[in-house]
Amino acid sequence: MSHSSVVADPSICSPLPVLGRDVTVPLVTGGEVTYAALDYAASAPALQRVWDDVAAYAPYYGSVHRGAGYLSQLSTDLFENARRTVAGFLGCRADDQVVFTRSTTDSLNLLARALPADCRVFVFETEHHASLLPWQDSQVTYLDAPRTPQQAVRTLERALADRDPHGPALVCVTGASNVTGELWPVRELAAAAHAHGARIVLDAAQLAPHHPVDIADLDVDWVAFSGHKLYAPFGAGVLAGRADWLRAAEPYLAGGGASRKVTRRTDGGVDVEWHESAARHEAGSPNVIGAYAVASACKALTEAGWADLVAREQRLIERVRTGLAGIPQVRVLSLFGDDAPRVGVISFVVEGWNSSHFAAALSAEYGIGVRDGLFCAHPLVRTLLGTDPQTQGECGAPEAAPGEKSLNAIRVSFGAGTPDEHVERFLTAVRELVTEGAKWTYRTEDGRCVPAV
Amino acid sequence: MSHSSVVADPSICSPLPVLGRDVTVPLVTGGEVTYAALDYAASAPALQRVWDDVAAYAPYYGSVHRGAGYLSQLSTDLFENARRTVAGFLGCRADDQVVFTRSTTDSLNLLARALPADCRVFVFETEHHASLLPWQDSQVTYLDAPRTPQQAVRTLERALADRDPHGPALVCVTGASNVTGELWPVRELAAAAHAHGARIVLDAAQLAPHHPVDIADLDVDWVAFSGHKLYAPFGAGVLAGRADWLRAAEPYLAGGGASRKVTRRTDGGVDVEWHESAARHEAGSPNVIGAYAVASACKALTEAGWADLVAREQRLIERVRTGLAGIPQVRVLSLFGDDAPRVGVISFVVEGWNSSHFAAALSAEYGIGVRDGLFCAHPLVRTLLGTDPQTQGECGAPEAAPGEKSLNAIRVSFGAGTPDEHVERFLTAVRELVTEGAKWTYRTEDGRCVPAV
Repeated sequence: MSHSSVVADPSICSPLPVLGRDVTVPLVTGGEVTYAALDYAASAPALQRVWDDVAAYAPYYGSVHRGAGYLSQLSTDLFENARRTVAGFLGCRADDQVVFTRSTTDSLNLLARALPADCRVFVFETEHHASLLPWQDSQVTYLDAPRTPQQAVRTLERALADRDPHGPALVCVTGASNVTGELWPVRELAAAAHAHGARIVLDAAQLAPHHPVDIADLDVDWVAFSGHKLYAPFGAGVLAGRADWLRAAEPYLAGGGASRKVTRRTDGGVDVEWHESAARHEAGSPNVIGAYAVASACKALTEAGWADLVAREQRLIERVRTGLAGIPQVRVLSLFGDDAPRVGVISFVVEGWNSSHFAAALSAEYGIGVRDGLFCAHPLVRTLLGTDPQTQGECGAPEAAPGEKSLNAIRVSFGAGTPDEHVERFLTAVRELVTEGAKWTYRTEDGRCVPAV
Repeated sequence: MSHSSVVADPSICSPLPVLGRDVTVPLVTGGEVTYAALDYAASAPALQRVWDDVAAYAPYYGSVHRGAGYLSQLSTDLFENARRTVAGFLGCRADDQVVFTRSTTDSLNLLARALPADCRVFVFETEHHASLLPWQDSQVTYLDAPRTPQQAVRTLERALADRDPHGPALVCVTGASNVTGELWPVRELAAAAHAHGARIVLDAAQLAPHHPVDIADLDVDWVAFSGHKLYAPFGAGVLAGRADWLRAAEPYLAGGGASRKVTRRTDGGVDVEWHESAARHEAGSPNVIGAYAVASACKALTEAGWADLVAREQRLIERVRTGLAGIPQVRVLSLFGDDAPRVGVISFVVEGWNSSHFAAALSAEYGIGVRDGLFCAHPLVRTLLGTDPQTQGECGAPEAAPGEKSLNAIRVSFGAGTPDEHVERFLTAVRELVTEGAKWTYRTEDGRCVPAV
């Protein structure tokens, strides 16, 4: 492989095989090139292993739970085993529940509906909208962006101590920022939350694909993550953690599967006994293939070995950051500074460029897929860009014609399936675009910046 | 093919290819046999065409909406085209919205959260729990089981006319019963609803896989269905119909994708502008593969031709009903009587048999997968069985030891992928079990009736 010369140890230089690694895309300048998927933070390609597992299972798919047939029993066992695999992957405690949802967003919306009455929620303004928005406006305290991990802990401690009344509280925090990739001090925030009688949910959407997450070791109460960012894009996500609030809550979805017994009352109404297991919040036929795909990814990452995966990714991060630092017009966005530990998610702006224009050129002229916009974390990106929210419109849409000042950013992100060549091509492309300009002209169409024909 | 002698016209005697058609399962009596999946009403196998489409797309999977890369734009187009395909499949009106959900249950829960204030809901007690339970207890009027379609219309008309105050109202009705397979008079119920100033949502979970559904022609306001019953078991479902209530409602899920713009207020809170398109209720990364699979199934069924699909299924229904009628101990459950039009969903009890025992023997001795239980329609099945709800426990669990009186039922269901041989094997098996008894002994374990070893 072309990148084997970069690092001698083959154990940390091979990406895990993913679908799409051989897909070629056309260049506006002519010819084709293999697609460089560098938008893992939005959605990662499926691991080949995940696809193979799904493909092997698909002919055996059957209705779960109450089907009497062989494939129904096989599918039910496979679904419940997927739950156990995820519990093991997250280091769940014996009495934790693992609920299959559709995504991190769905998981946090479920938890929002399971909060005790009068629970206050504390969330930093720097969070993804999935963590910012599921809560009732009246119950949330938004915390200002900290500029160090220590400041984050101090800010949270003060807010929790000052809450009045001192009732039930939940802290919602990301493990790794979906904008800067920077790690948040989860263990310290969890300790602060518990010291002040609060609970904490970890948004691990960006952490779980890059780092081991141990719910008991971090001492967080819940963890949420998405299959589609964990190399398993089949519509399933996870909420795992403390069973008590989940058991006490009304079912997230009402319907079959969640209901144990339904009877008509003599007054004409209906009485329902709900399950107390994870099924309580999983009404309807579960997404068995999605859950199985998540479990397959959990197994694949564990078997690949986190030490090697992390070492390889850190090498790519170092390469990208060093490369971008050598291009003066590029400004990398950071909340916690250069020394902060981080995962393979890096956002930046290029002086003199509209970010949408830049991203469109990376795609059209180099076959590189990144993301431009505000990354569903509007307050954070505006803080980092120092821009006025009043001048900005829709999430991620190009705000200015090509060449005008950028009001949004470019994000490059990668992971276990990324070959070195993608990263090298990306750095070459950024350097060429900055120094030589785009080879093509672009225009905005339906909110997208596209090559002009 | 062995069944080609049954009907001369080959155009209506070939099942559509589905995954799992060659899967063999072990028999407790020795040997293996191809699995006869006769639990389509719970979940249908994937059409081979759906699988092929998913497999062809999977390497091209990319993040949708704001990704700048080629595969992101391809995936976004594919996702939005899937929406248009579903709209076409359902005959949607120009201003209808198609929201991708996870299932019918999810679709109806979404609609329940989008009702105007003071909206009353009218639902027959005969509905699936997914239609019975999503509504607030205080807002629902449950209607007694009708014994004819005409009685259903009269019952609804009276209830709607009598409502006080005469405010906004929603009728929720199934197109085809998940227990009896009988068709409900949807067009007439829709006319009644509209005549009384109410709206109507069609639960098409059991109808859409078997019959064309035209939202404009039926004049219903919304249609809900599940991919996993429509030969596309990849975690996606649909709610399609009137946009006004959906646009006026709070987002079903809060998070990215649904939010157009998020800004911090000067008082520390957060202001959100939500999308007004279907994205309003689809927060989080959408299940692109699931939505694409649903669209693929819609295309496959349309291209196969509804006339042939319906004709073939009606022939299988006739064969099963005639066959069961020739076995005196078998009682087929029916609300509307023998002449009611129906789809391939037939429930029955066998005199002297516990239904779970019977279903377990069909699986273990014949390789046939059916379902036993109350089918997430407890009030309906109790009405049909004439049993006392107080003596019954968990949904579908065996209530009595093998040989005792049955408190639940057996359901056989089939569709476009079912070969004649499965139906013939099923009828042979029922006759043999009834006349000769089971060849094996069974016991209850973890709520399942299983062969004793």
